[in-house]
Amino acid sequence: MRREITGFSNPTVKYLRSLREKKHRKREGKFLAEGLRLLTDARESGRLPEMLVMALGRDAHPLLNTLEADVLEAGGEVVETTPDILGKITGKDNPQAVAGVFAEFDTGITSLQRDRAPIWLVAQALRDPGNLGTMLRTGDAIGAGGLILIDDCADPFSVEAVRASMGAIFTQSVAQANWPEFLEWLRGGSGQLVAASLRDALPYRQAPYAAPCFVMVGNESRGLPQEYEDACDLRVTMPMRGRADSLNAAVAGAVLGYEVLAALEG
Amino acid sequence: MRREITGFSNPTVKYLRSLREKKHRKREGKFLAEGLRLLTDARESGRLPEMLVMALGRDAHPLLNTLEADVLEAGGEVVETTPDILGKITGKDNPQAVAGVFAEFDTGITSLQRDRAPIWLVAQALRDPGNLGTMLRTGDAIGAGGLILIDDCADPFSVEAVRASMGAIFTQSVAQANWPEFLEWLRGGSGQLVAASLRDALPYRQAPYAAPCFVMVGNESRGLPQEYEDACDLRVTMPMRGRADSLNAAVAGAVLGYEVLAALEG
Repeated sequence: MRREITGFSNPTVKYLRSLREKKHRKREGKFLAEGLRLLTDARESGRLPEMLVMALGRDAHPLLNTLEADVLEAGGEVVETTPDILGKITGKDNPQAVAGVFAEFDTGITSLQRDRAPIWLVAQALRDPGNLGTMLRTGDAIGAGGLILIDDCADPFSVEAVRASMGAIFTQSVAQANWPEFLEWLRGGSGQLVAASLRDALPYRQAPYAAPCFVMVGNESRGLPQEYEDACDLRVTMPMRGRADSLNAAVAGAVLGYEVLAALEG
Repeated sequence: MRREITGFSNPTVKYLRSLREKKHRKREGKFLAEGLRLLTDARESGRLPEMLVMALGRDAHPLLNTLEADVLEAGGEVVETTPDILGKITGKDNPQAVAGVFAEFDTGITSLQRDRAPIWLVAQALRDPGNLGTMLRTGDAIGAGGLILIDDCADPFSVEAVRASMGAIFTQSVAQANWPEFLEWLRGGSGQLVAASLRDALPYRQAPYAAPCFVMVGNESRGLPQEYEDACDLRVTMPMRGRADSLNAAVAGAVLGYEVLAALEG
């Protein structure tokens, strides 16, 4: 179905804008992704938006034509609107010419298939959606199965996280669980839980990593609770040659993730 | 000197607020850093603010007392103001209880001492201040000498970059140059320029890194221009197991930087 919207007060505009807020995303079970590149990544990963929103008067683009045709063929909706309204939806002065509404995925931890990949990333109380999206992007790069979010993390379906993931939100599994749920699931099968730690740890370049390896990073300000570190199968230490005693959380996950990848592929 | 300010229209408040904007920072040659942790890192690195701004009615803290005494002893100024005004200065609803004004450092490339460290990070047209600050933080961790900013990068003295650096802005050298200036400086001494590349590259785990090693990453959207890649002494490739062909810029610099550190320390 195809529609044109030219009024700011249209209920669809209100609906789309509301998806910038977590409570509305959760109520609707939908999220927004913006930009032709991101939507093309989604399409090529087998995910089509339920609703495609495009600016009237946009430049033609073959990838956009393909996207539009695929959405219509799949029974989705194509909405054309003014650049002003699109800017109001995306919250940007200079909006990209296209946005899409997707159904949020199942993020139940019990639906993860741990044997699908040798590495999984785990984040505990990660508060910054940019860090979260960056971890998804890194996970895609190292061939991880997905990102497991422990305790109260940023919303992986926020516009900022989706953007920072550079499309990896469509290829990586995402699971959410509290710490006891995660531990119970983890210990119900094989899996090595690894974290960077300053206590009782092996050098990260010489540690006996084993698949499936779960690489865990902690909150941006507080790091991991000691109890969580204690539950790890392996604690590793990374060089800290300067004044600081920690890395940015997404950076720590990436350096450790790449090390695990190299070790497993030996 | 010690002063109390309780009026929003006070010229000092206007001055402090103006430092959130790049053009005012450049005119004044000053920048803002916020939070007791950051200011304590600065003090311990031998950098004291010219002006220390604290909230009236704040909780007492021994580190804050030390900071205050040191600033006064060094001839600096201590300003006490209301939490409302401090919030207006820092642009936050819930401001940290302290902020400091620092003189911007010399960022001329010719003042860098390349032999001071085995690794240097280099960023080209890096636009995100959070990425820039994260690279400073990573540089501190790997024992880099500093961060060299090529072409039109985000301002290293922006509040966001300073915050993301977690104090590394006070320990890492920062230099700014355009590409010809940088190349001329680089080739005027020893130094290996390395970048991640998809073309004509060696696996990053098996490359002959040599100190002083300059690890370069490109712009967030476009990567490095081909001409810049061609000028590198070493191009390396990192595994990309998924759909994407690149990492977040700060992540790429960190993974490569840690690899260089491990290789140089053998």
